[in-house]
Amino acid sequence: MSYDFLWQIALILISTKVFGLITRRFQMPQVVGALLAGLVLGPAVLGLLPSDSEMIKQLAELGVIVIMFSAGMETDIRDLKNAGKSGFLVAVLGVLVPLFGGAGLAAWLAPTENMLQNFFIGTVLTATSVSITVEALREMGCLQSRVGNTILAAAIIDDILGIIALTIMTSMGGSGESVVVVLLKIAAFLVVCCLVYVVGVKVMDWYIGRAKEKNLRRYPIAAFVVCLLMAWVAEEFFGVADITGAFAAGLMIGATKKAGYIASKMEPVQYLFLAPVFFASIGMTVVLPPMTTDIIVFSVLLVVVAVLSKWIGCGLGAKICGFSTKDCNRIGLGMVCRGEVALIVANKGAEVGLMPDALFGPVIIMVIISTIVTPILLKLAYKGESEMQLEESVLDDRMEELEQLDIVTDQLLTREQEIRGKNR
Amino acid sequence: MSYDFLWQIALILISTKVFGLITRRFQMPQVVGALLAGLVLGPAVLGLLPSDSEMIKQLAELGVIVIMFSAGMETDIRDLKNAGKSGFLVAVLGVLVPLFGGAGLAAWLAPTENMLQNFFIGTVLTATSVSITVEALREMGCLQSRVGNTILAAAIIDDILGIIALTIMTSMGGSGESVVVVLLKIAAFLVVCCLVYVVGVKVMDWYIGRAKEKNLRRYPIAAFVVCLLMAWVAEEFFGVADITGAFAAGLMIGATKKAGYIASKMEPVQYLFLAPVFFASIGMTVVLPPMTTDIIVFSVLLVVVAVLSKWIGCGLGAKICGFSTKDCNRIGLGMVCRGEVALIVANKGAEVGLMPDALFGPVIIMVIISTIVTPILLKLAYKGESEMQLEESVLDDRMEELEQLDIVTDQLLTREQEIRGKNR
Repeated sequence: MSYDFLWQIALILISTKVFGLITRRFQMPQVVGALLAGLVLGPAVLGLLPSDSEMIKQLAELGVIVIMFSAGMETDIRDLKNAGKSGFLVAVLGVLVPLFGGAGLAAWLAPTENMLQNFFIGTVLTATSVSITVEALREMGCLQSRVGNTILAAAIIDDILGIIALTIMTSMGGSGESVVVVLLKIAAFLVVCCLVYVVGVKVMDWYIGRAKEKNLRRYPIAAFVVCLLMAWVAEEFFGVADITGAFAAGLMIGATKKAGYIASKMEPVQYLFLAPVFFASIGMTVVLPPMTTDIIVFSVLLVVVAVLSKWIGCGLGAKICGFSTKDCNRIGLGMVCRGEVALIVANKGAEVGLMPDALFGPVIIMVIISTIVTPILLKLAYKGESEMQLEESVLDDRMEELEQLDIVTDQLLTREQEIRGKNR
Repeated sequence: MSYDFLWQIALILISTKVFGLITRRFQMPQVVGALLAGLVLGPAVLGLLPSDSEMIKQLAELGVIVIMFSAGMETDIRDLKNAGKSGFLVAVLGVLVPLFGGAGLAAWLAPTENMLQNFFIGTVLTATSVSITVEALREMGCLQSRVGNTILAAAIIDDILGIIALTIMTSMGGSGESVVVVLLKIAAFLVVCCLVYVVGVKVMDWYIGRAKEKNLRRYPIAAFVVCLLMAWVAEEFFGVADITGAFAAGLMIGATKKAGYIASKMEPVQYLFLAPVFFASIGMTVVLPPMTTDIIVFSVLLVVVAVLSKWIGCGLGAKICGFSTKDCNRIGLGMVCRGEVALIVANKGAEVGLMPDALFGPVIIMVIISTIVTPILLKLAYKGESEMQLEESVLDDRMEELEQLDIVTDQLLTREQEIRGKNR
């Protein structure tokens, strides 16, 4: 066994923290710094960290699962339900506008006349990657707001719409599952989530009530197990993203009696280990292929279309639902971020011959730029808000929900150490 | 990317907890249950968990690193120094007796007449694997005792003696580094550890004093980074075990002002994720080769020699240092456990032609049985002790150092939830 993962993880932890503190000094969210840390240390710039470490990839996947699990725990299902209607419209317009925007751009510039191929470029642009937005909103203390809940609801629906769009495209391309099967699977997944929610909360609360007050560690362990299983089941059996399963598990655990305790124990696992690996890994995967002038022009325009189409599409959806212009702006920007789903979709497209190899470079550039600009634009959209208050976040090291308690703990332990030292 | 690691980790977490609770009910340390969980779910019995997952192996390595890091944080360097003298004698006799015991057994039974090969079997028996003992002692609240410190000191010296023995054997076998180089490397490592300790504590305390009270998360992150780097440096540059480096890092962090806070944040990372993976992985790696009657007889005798030689050797060393018979017994038993180092040594031996393939099966059996019996025998050796009190442990879910505070936190958060619910 190679021991390289030890220094790699160490380098990721220290660099994401240092870069995060630097970006914070520039009034930018720390998540921007963490993303830049991965980009700088990865093959794109310094080449210190490898882009193909299976261990880092799997830890990163655990990281994003845990982030979405925590977002689920922080979300009240009633707020999510209330946000569902507007979330639906935001998601639908946020899928349609990029779909046609991307197709239009491809029809205009791409080296193909196949209509299906053009629409496939549009499909790549549909999937929002919400984890970066969640982290940015959390850092700004705005995750538990109407805007935050609408974005979360829209992102879940967006994930489902994205799967449907991909299925339609690939089945039209002559491969993949039938649309009916995919729809049935999604419906089944939603039923399973509801069942898990209703039964899970009851079982957990019964177990919590039954056990002795002192037996505490089993609850975070049980919660983490539920999170991992839901993530796996979503991905493996229902074709839904693992993070959607983890979010559903979080909603369930968040409704149990030990939610606060569980969250406080999941927190160090996130900020001390898994979340930094996830954020850094996004930048680390960037390996740019050689590019021609045509491809560079296409890349720039793809980024512009990707950002504007989501912004406008989702913002429009929010406007129709009666949000203020400011909040429409925020919702639109919050949905701009694209992630690994876009790359997965592009890969699937290549498999069925719908995605030209030359366009992989532009898609990678689109993913990385949309990921980095999202938290920056969100921060600007929230600038000067009085409601803005720093809150518990994966990366921030100033505040924790239990911060006061932590400081007290710390002082108690320091004193204990001193007393022990004196008694020698 | 395959998503199998999600259910694998979930299965490990739930099974180690459930098996641990079962063994606790039988008055046995939970670590025995965690080891059995891996054995039962692994290829040896049910075959549910794979024995060759690189991800699980690396997480397990992180697990044992974090366990030894925590043991270092809990250990006072002055106690360790005091225990050093007796630890040295315990280690020396604990290496010599198994070395000659194993060689004798091999000379008597093994299918070879090469003296060097016989002594190599003895060398395989020399390396103690202290992590299981650390966990068992922690569960029984006896890690921070004179016995606990002597075992820790002896295990560190044992690690170094084991490397020297292996080097002598392989260089006599015509391969490997020269003994002088190895000794110089070990000396250099000790110098580095001392430097890191003296400078590290000062730098950390200066940084802690300089920063604002509220910036807390950076300390556990910095501590974890130091732990990972020391583990890597030990393994990569000095040929010392990674866990020895992690232990040294723990000693250093444990002497800083924020030791208590850092330990409280490392704890969930251990018990919620990494430590169960480590304990389960030991059982999971057991894949028994087909065996003949001769080999089965040899296996049984190898186990007996492995257990008795360490027990007697280390116990004798402790007796000479003036420990009571009871404590000699405990120290001897605490050193019985063998681990992956024995397998690594066996592999190195096979590379230079000193280790017959047929004897790998017996070595594997010796490792797993010595690992499982150590915590059981230790528990029996401590039976009826009034000083025995349950303390913070990786696996135990009843007690934590901060347990009271946790319960208060939990109650506060539960109330907050209730109040929020009412205000709707």
